[in-house]
Amino acid sequence: MTSVRASVFQTPTPDHLESMADVVISVDDAGVISSIAPADQWQSPVDHHLDPSHRLLPGLVDLHIHAPQWPQLGTGLDLPLERWLFDHTFPLESRFADLAFAEMVWADLVPALLRHGTTTAVYYGSIHLAATTALARACLRFGQRAFVGRVAMDHLDGTPGWYRDPSASAAIEASARSIAEIRALGSELVQPIVTPRFIPACSDATLAGLGALADTTGTLVQTHCSESDWEHQYVIDRFGFSDTMALDRFGLMRPNSVLAHGGLLGDSDFERIVERQAGIAHCPLSNAYFGDAVFPLRRALDAGVNVGLGTDIAGGPEPSLMRTAAQAVTSSRMLESGVDPRRVRDDRGVADQRIDVVNAFWLATRGGAEVLGLPVGLLEVGRPFDAIAVDVGGVGGRLWDDVDDDARLFEKLIRSTSADRISHTWVAGALVSQRPG
Amino acid sequence: MTSVRASVFQTPTPDHLESMADVVISVDDAGVISSIAPADQWQSPVDHHLDPSHRLLPGLVDLHIHAPQWPQLGTGLDLPLERWLFDHTFPLESRFADLAFAEMVWADLVPALLRHGTTTAVYYGSIHLAATTALARACLRFGQRAFVGRVAMDHLDGTPGWYRDPSASAAIEASARSIAEIRALGSELVQPIVTPRFIPACSDATLAGLGALADTTGTLVQTHCSESDWEHQYVIDRFGFSDTMALDRFGLMRPNSVLAHGGLLGDSDFERIVERQAGIAHCPLSNAYFGDAVFPLRRALDAGVNVGLGTDIAGGPEPSLMRTAAQAVTSSRMLESGVDPRRVRDDRGVADQRIDVVNAFWLATRGGAEVLGLPVGLLEVGRPFDAIAVDVGGVGGRLWDDVDDDARLFEKLIRSTSADRISHTWVAGALVSQRPG
Repeated sequence: MTSVRASVFQTPTPDHLESMADVVISVDDAGVISSIAPADQWQSPVDHHLDPSHRLLPGLVDLHIHAPQWPQLGTGLDLPLERWLFDHTFPLESRFADLAFAEMVWADLVPALLRHGTTTAVYYGSIHLAATTALARACLRFGQRAFVGRVAMDHLDGTPGWYRDPSASAAIEASARSIAEIRALGSELVQPIVTPRFIPACSDATLAGLGALADTTGTLVQTHCSESDWEHQYVIDRFGFSDTMALDRFGLMRPNSVLAHGGLLGDSDFERIVERQAGIAHCPLSNAYFGDAVFPLRRALDAGVNVGLGTDIAGGPEPSLMRTAAQAVTSSRMLESGVDPRRVRDDRGVADQRIDVVNAFWLATRGGAEVLGLPVGLLEVGRPFDAIAVDVGGVGGRLWDDVDDDARLFEKLIRSTSADRISHTWVAGALVSQRPG
Repeated sequence: MTSVRASVFQTPTPDHLESMADVVISVDDAGVISSIAPADQWQSPVDHHLDPSHRLLPGLVDLHIHAPQWPQLGTGLDLPLERWLFDHTFPLESRFADLAFAEMVWADLVPALLRHGTTTAVYYGSIHLAATTALARACLRFGQRAFVGRVAMDHLDGTPGWYRDPSASAAIEASARSIAEIRALGSELVQPIVTPRFIPACSDATLAGLGALADTTGTLVQTHCSESDWEHQYVIDRFGFSDTMALDRFGLMRPNSVLAHGGLLGDSDFERIVERQAGIAHCPLSNAYFGDAVFPLRRALDAGVNVGLGTDIAGGPEPSLMRTAAQAVTSSRMLESGVDPRRVRDDRGVADQRIDVVNAFWLATRGGAEVLGLPVGLLEVGRPFDAIAVDVGGVGGRLWDDVDDDARLFEKLIRSTSADRISHTWVAGALVSQRPG
């Protein structure tokens, strides 16, 4: 199908940076990597020969995106979560009843994320069936691997009258139809995902019905989980136990369930997530605005929890998962050092919480893929060719060859890659985005 | 000299966003704004008519840049400060003995920062006289307003034998010569600045001599101040009091002295800074890696301290002061909410510490200018025309006219502007950077 000659950076494990200098990767007609060979042993012409200032990397896996919030990316973050939802976000999402508006947004959003290197996207849609199916179609048309979920939300207190499912049965029925419509598109690239918005927005009947729906249809699940003090306490007040236990009782804590945020999760929650083979979408930038604390990433990883990264568009203002990875490193450092200079050092932060750029890139690629149970996130024979090419030619446009070794070059790349430095994006072997020039 | 037709965003005060729709700004031959008029009252042709998807803003003032660290931007940030300095930074800086290497770096650095919208830069050079003067010349050649300081560092413990001034008298003498050489370039645009690296790197004699040098030559001063637990405590151990008192005793706490970081400063330090009319360069991203805490910005502002922003290249991995402004908002939110989810909410953060994007942009423009005593940072008749044009056409390339009002558009702009969205940069009326196309 295609072949690419390049030097590769990737992270097969959370702690290991692998560098392959000047190899040719060939991809078969199914979009799967069929061989990786040193370039000097390759005889045939190649389709794409990357400039030496570029590196080829696995594509990025964004576990948490609210697609209809794209037009408000970067706004309203000074508001508390409840006002942000009711005054900004729900009014915007309700506009996706208008299919033409939805299609205009999807046609902007999906290519933008491909330019940012997001080859796999896990999307919340809106409550609208047509707009959600249109999002799945847009992903197929632009070639992005995706999970697309129609949002279920029917709780009389947790949602406004003008933006909710009219009943639990309506919520479940529309969710079932959304699964059928997305499956009817007939591509493995784009899959449905059962999406109860979060517990405060859903009635018990809806939560239980969606758990059963996921089970009978074999569909993945996504929801929010212990995102903030308010949301975490709300669930305890309503059920007498935490989000993970509640989700578990409703049948929503399943293999590859994507739990967004999780900042307030405790050790017993981590155990339950491991037991159920679910995973967490860590959204560091959104958490700084709505999460009330830093997700204890190192503790989760040490407990054996599957974790990947999410931008949380538009609760997070940053569309780039690479920049989100850099922020995950920064946030982990702030958790470790603490923030309040008036406290003495030993009472300020939490020891041993830092991650490094290698850990962060693994989260952004293989980590996210493992949460979803997908074989992507690594360039290896037998895996889909989901990849990006990044210009690492120095922030100022120059590669400081005599200063940088691989580890330093990789650190620069993680800390400085924006969309204008991603030259190519491939999904399943298809070139789906390319910078002009 | 030139005229620009555009809509303007700017922050005349820390809390006020001013929006001027479709005005013509004319600039005289001295680079000073001579008039601002509604476009429909303007008769003559204009030199630059910005597309409606663009906004004109005051140029950015970066108060803290280590110019010779540019080639290592974004690397080594997993190291503790001392190892970062001795194993990475000092070896790199020592290479600036080679003038050709220095000139290659400056020719990359200065245009890159202009592309990022930094119209005023406060630079640390290296200990090398020739390389430092070459940096001043590069600023003049590329048209960047700048303060350029030859670094003085002679302490036998705080510096390595292979990268230090040989004696206090040599440090003071070279600093005096650097002032003379930079003044001899004969432009107001680029000024010298007295630069004791930081107290741990300087002998008492050097600190005292540089204080006297600043006084006799009427030169501004820059140094680091209470950056981290280690550095803050080092000064207390050496002198029995904090950085601000020590700097004051050595005559370095003067009007418009730029004190970088200040995360560990207490209320009495703030009082001293206000009394001496000095100011602080807040470097939020660098502080997450080397500062051990978040600078208590809100407390400093409430105490009446002049504060601006610094990237701290390369202690901070981000060259964009606009992104640094966004990070200042994020860091202030993390100080307010706290970071450790195991603490109860009331014991986690510090109340009332947040800033918003309007405050942050003011810090990045007028705030920084006030620290330096410069008239820039605001587009007003009688002030120099230092300005940038930013494409605010939606993150995905689209302006959501029906979603965004001015306040939301401005928030988007602060949270999403990278170099590829800055189309023009002017300094003192001269167009010094323009994106192709």
